[in-house]
Amino acid sequence: MAPEADTKFKGYAVTDSNKWSDFTVIEYQPKTWEETDIELAITHCGVCGSDVHTITGGWGHVPVPLVVGHEIVGTVTRVGSKVTEFKVGDRAGVGAQIASCYNCRACKNDEECYCPKSIDTYASQYPDGVRTMGGYSTHIRANELFTFPIPDKLESRHAASMLCAGLTVFSPLVRNGCGPGKKVGVIGIGGLGHYALLFAKALGAEVYALTHSTRKVEDIKKMGADHIIVTDEEGKFAADHQMELDLIISTADVAEGMPLQAYLSMLWVHGRFITVGLPDKPLPQLRAFDFAPNGCFLGGSHIGNKKEAVAMLKLAAEKGIKPWIEELPMKDAKIAVERVQKNDIRYRFVLTQDLA
Amino acid sequence: MAPEADTKFKGYAVTDSNKWSDFTVIEYQPKTWEETDIELAITHCGVCGSDVHTITGGWGHVPVPLVVGHEIVGTVTRVGSKVTEFKVGDRAGVGAQIASCYNCRACKNDEECYCPKSIDTYASQYPDGVRTMGGYSTHIRANELFTFPIPDKLESRHAASMLCAGLTVFSPLVRNGCGPGKKVGVIGIGGLGHYALLFAKALGAEVYALTHSTRKVEDIKKMGADHIIVTDEEGKFAADHQMELDLIISTADVAEGMPLQAYLSMLWVHGRFITVGLPDKPLPQLRAFDFAPNGCFLGGSHIGNKKEAVAMLKLAAEKGIKPWIEELPMKDAKIAVERVQKNDIRYRFVLTQDLA
Repeated sequence: MAPEADTKFKGYAVTDSNKWSDFTVIEYQPKTWEETDIELAITHCGVCGSDVHTITGGWGHVPVPLVVGHEIVGTVTRVGSKVTEFKVGDRAGVGAQIASCYNCRACKNDEECYCPKSIDTYASQYPDGVRTMGGYSTHIRANELFTFPIPDKLESRHAASMLCAGLTVFSPLVRNGCGPGKKVGVIGIGGLGHYALLFAKALGAEVYALTHSTRKVEDIKKMGADHIIVTDEEGKFAADHQMELDLIISTADVAEGMPLQAYLSMLWVHGRFITVGLPDKPLPQLRAFDFAPNGCFLGGSHIGNKKEAVAMLKLAAEKGIKPWIEELPMKDAKIAVERVQKNDIRYRFVLTQDLA
Repeated sequence: MAPEADTKFKGYAVTDSNKWSDFTVIEYQPKTWEETDIELAITHCGVCGSDVHTITGGWGHVPVPLVVGHEIVGTVTRVGSKVTEFKVGDRAGVGAQIASCYNCRACKNDEECYCPKSIDTYASQYPDGVRTMGGYSTHIRANELFTFPIPDKLESRHAASMLCAGLTVFSPLVRNGCGPGKKVGVIGIGGLGHYALLFAKALGAEVYALTHSTRKVEDIKKMGADHIIVTDEEGKFAADHQMELDLIISTADVAEGMPLQAYLSMLWVHGRFITVGLPDKPLPQLRAFDFAPNGCFLGGSHIGNKKEAVAMLKLAAEKGIKPWIEELPMKDAKIAVERVQKNDIRYRFVLTQDLA
């Protein structure tokens, strides 16, 4: 093993924030090794909408050079002496969060995904100053808490995009009561939305897909939705479904023209509208009155905790849940991010290793 | 008893929507009698912010002549043959809702306050066309489901304003887990807010009063708040209380300058911000990102159901909860509504009968 200070990882980086889809191979310093860490040789990395929001500057300043990617699966190549769950050769994954403070109220209550000192898998920084770099790369290091074992029955290419897209919808589904007897709406059938359909069905709910165009209807039927509602900006679609749904997961990541009042009116008493989509722009303005007729809730969610990640992967393995993916070698990241930006993807890209 | 068609009630009405605080005594036709009804001779009626929002036109068109008032206590003077809970001479009250459809999913699940065909105690209309008139009047008729028995230990003048203001905060407190071990914030210490403090304390929570001025601090201490936070429009007050509160009940009924993002940041993971205040204008615009750091919820509530009204009155009787009220004869309704409109009230007016 090379001396720690010399260890470098390689990845496909955006190096000029004005050329957000041009990737260049760079070398960079990994996380400073700790004995609670695992190191993975990456085999697969999903392409998340977050990657595109980040590199295009939609969510703010882009610290270049930057390697994105936070739906990472690989093979364990090194384990710290304090690691208990993994051994070299295991398959494991890393999602959108790479670290937390491990000490706060959130961390001590299995809410590490809500730790105020949470560190993102890329475009963030460790307390010692090392910048975090994502999974369009050869390797990643992460604390055991942010490393998830991949069940034998689940292929790596299928597991990869579950680790952000899947978990981001699985967590609010299970936390908000998705299950038998519940009616669950999913807005926006893209990467996250297709996972929400698959998981909500697997969890036993009656599932409503809400889509603004008819072009995905055949796909949505194959994903198992019980109902398909084609939406419009005026909210007319909601009239026949007043106070019908227990839960809506919105993956919409464009706020303009979102018929939010209409969506809220579809919720049963104290029903919840959870936006996991994070549009660059503000949500449509609401009046307090919009919440009164059904005492509904508008809320958010932030990925999920390790327990949920493990439960999701177990459910996927047991039920044979397979995401709809398109695989590309990592060198084609440009194609992937450009098509994600144009919303030309059914329903997730997974990049495969070609650098290592 | 006079023939039904001739029965008239008398009340203080607004007769010109441009003169919202001028009241004239009128006679009007009451609800068509049904055998599930109770009739009350009104002794007390609270003055609610809703009365003022309604008569000033803030919530829309004002159907004149209109008798407002929906915090009504009186003595039962007539009971229908199908009424089981009341007898002539009992004290009883009526709140902001006077009827529902009695048949829908909401009505069949003790959610009558969320019935889509809910009828307001005033400025609304029964299916047969009879307009609803409120409690600045001699009598009221209501279905038993919307009539609440007043416990012996509770004075009528204290019970009156509990029936809208009290229930409006009591319901979301109990539905959202207010109790021992929970930290509950109350925004706006007016009529509703002072009830929220009193009830949240009585339910065993640690209570935070959030007020935008220091002038009520001494009162708030006497009401039993454990913490007082003086707010500012920039939201600086929130910095020391990030992710601290389990629940916030907002009674603020002005939306301009409301530091809503700051309030949301004070919530613990999946904490809830419930606005029971209904400002005339839209809420400050939010981004989906505002909900992500703590997975918080923004929600509403609509009065409460009968079971909650009964539980609230029982709690008030048992714990000796007394609202801070100022009593005026009904003929001084003008003074009351003008002072409510100017927010010059500590903390609720109760009008006493002078017409009957």
